[in-house]
Amino acid sequence: MSESPLPTPLSSHPIGVFDSGYGGLSVLRELRRVLPNEDYIYLGDSGRAPYGGRDLATVLDFAEQCVDLLFAEGCRVVVVACHTVSCVALRHLQQLHAGTDRRILGVTIPAAENAVAVSKGHIGFLGTRRTVSSHTFRTEVAKLDSHVKVTEVAAPLLAPIVEEGWEDSDIARLSVEQYLSQVGDVDTLVLGCTHYPLLRAVFEQSLPKEVHLLDPAPYVALRLVDWFGRHPEFRSQGTGKLRVLSSGDTVRFAKNATRFLGSVPPLIEHVAERNGRLIFSPEGEEPTGQFVRVV
Amino acid sequence: MSESPLPTPLSSHPIGVFDSGYGGLSVLRELRRVLPNEDYIYLGDSGRAPYGGRDLATVLDFAEQCVDLLFAEGCRVVVVACHTVSCVALRHLQQLHAGTDRRILGVTIPAAENAVAVSKGHIGFLGTRRTVSSHTFRTEVAKLDSHVKVTEVAAPLLAPIVEEGWEDSDIARLSVEQYLSQVGDVDTLVLGCTHYPLLRAVFEQSLPKEVHLLDPAPYVALRLVDWFGRHPEFRSQGTGKLRVLSSGDTVRFAKNATRFLGSVPPLIEHVAERNGRLIFSPEGEEPTGQFVRVV
Repeated sequence: MSESPLPTPLSSHPIGVFDSGYGGLSVLRELRRVLPNEDYIYLGDSGRAPYGGRDLATVLDFAEQCVDLLFAEGCRVVVVACHTVSCVALRHLQQLHAGTDRRILGVTIPAAENAVAVSKGHIGFLGTRRTVSSHTFRTEVAKLDSHVKVTEVAAPLLAPIVEEGWEDSDIARLSVEQYLSQVGDVDTLVLGCTHYPLLRAVFEQSLPKEVHLLDPAPYVALRLVDWFGRHPEFRSQGTGKLRVLSSGDTVRFAKNATRFLGSVPPLIEHVAERNGRLIFSPEGEEPTGQFVRVV
Repeated sequence: MSESPLPTPLSSHPIGVFDSGYGGLSVLRELRRVLPNEDYIYLGDSGRAPYGGRDLATVLDFAEQCVDLLFAEGCRVVVVACHTVSCVALRHLQQLHAGTDRRILGVTIPAAENAVAVSKGHIGFLGTRRTVSSHTFRTEVAKLDSHVKVTEVAAPLLAPIVEEGWEDSDIARLSVEQYLSQVGDVDTLVLGCTHYPLLRAVFEQSLPKEVHLLDPAPYVALRLVDWFGRHPEFRSQGTGKLRVLSSGDTVRFAKNATRFLGSVPPLIEHVAERNGRLIFSPEGEEPTGQFVRVV
């Protein structure tokens, strides 16, 4: 899957995919695998990531801004790839856009469905602090099967380890082991953050062979195929094109994107917050020294 | 230093100390050691920490809000304990309040002075990604002595390790070693983030004996004593009282505060952002599940 080096304007209604950073590219990768002919716009809010330790009101603000931008760019369906947003803000976003011809889909319910389908009775779930404190995953599992036990553990060190590119290190191995010791004796472990699939090899080494290690992304993609079957009017009518937007350092984003996406991304377009809205914004050299803003 | 369990209204002009989280309490601790009879208000913006990976405009917004709140609470002097804010936003804050009877002091110039005074020619500096990319520390060192070499390295994993309380672990030791290997052959190492002093023991084990390990906080405190000597009108006229404000989870803040402050803090007062300002805000139970905001 090689990409054009320049962003291509999309005349279709692309599928929006939104994450707090580049982690959600691992979800986009699965979507493109099963729906290769759709057009996509990916928005990684990397300039304000991580969301996981933030106040609720801030997460809601950011999520609103990101979804608004994707709708403004022509999307009619947005997949919230970020587990934090999906766990705390999905219903808020859906209610904001209720009664319109726009749809917002999350990853938490698919993750719960997938886990319940394979579990024998005890599911472990790793995520950010905010994701875990919401207990939304546990709630969704209980709706499906109240007899399944769920142990949720916050693993705030894992995303920074992946951001450093230290997946293949003793630091990664020891941290994963530390968090797994808190999870305890589960038969299924859900990777509840889009960064964690890059640590799959470490998890596989540290977990007993019989434990199901679950990246929800492939199942999220299958659920979207199913959803389009029931809502064909929302398909993008595209030709497999991709645009990628980031609110952060685009050079760093591009460097990391390839690892998550599994292919070279197109030129990253920069967006920035101005007066509570995300807008397209040229990104110059990373400024150095004291930064004085003219009021 | 035992504290009253309830916040006490301050009738003086307390010294404001501001950090993105609780790390700056390690600076406050040094300030209170040399200036025990001043009153202080500490503001930790922990609900929106870490600042280190954020966009510049966002760091400036947050810094403005925090300083404004401390001034509104009666402070006339604010010490910016956060190296990220001090490196990128100090001049901005000072210009915003130029011509008023309010003063904003940072930690970067004291850190540079202290390092140059002890270094034999090669200073290492560890900080957040944003702190390091500003190169403000290197710039300040060059102003003092252009012959001193500075190697700045971003160490984004160290603050999360301290937040986890994993200072005494192989994960901490391996991470510190990894970052030190990037710093190279220095004679002085500056801990350029208020979280890092809690890793002092690990640094001491990993560094050659002859390397100067520098936590700038004690020197920052001495510089403040010196500054008050020249500006006695800015002293707080207090009696050693302390208030502590946080924008995040106050229970978690209180739990961590003791480690940084070295004593039990008073009851943490909660603040939150509303319409671009920080205001006092009652904090209820941590909400669970989907969070729908009424517009």
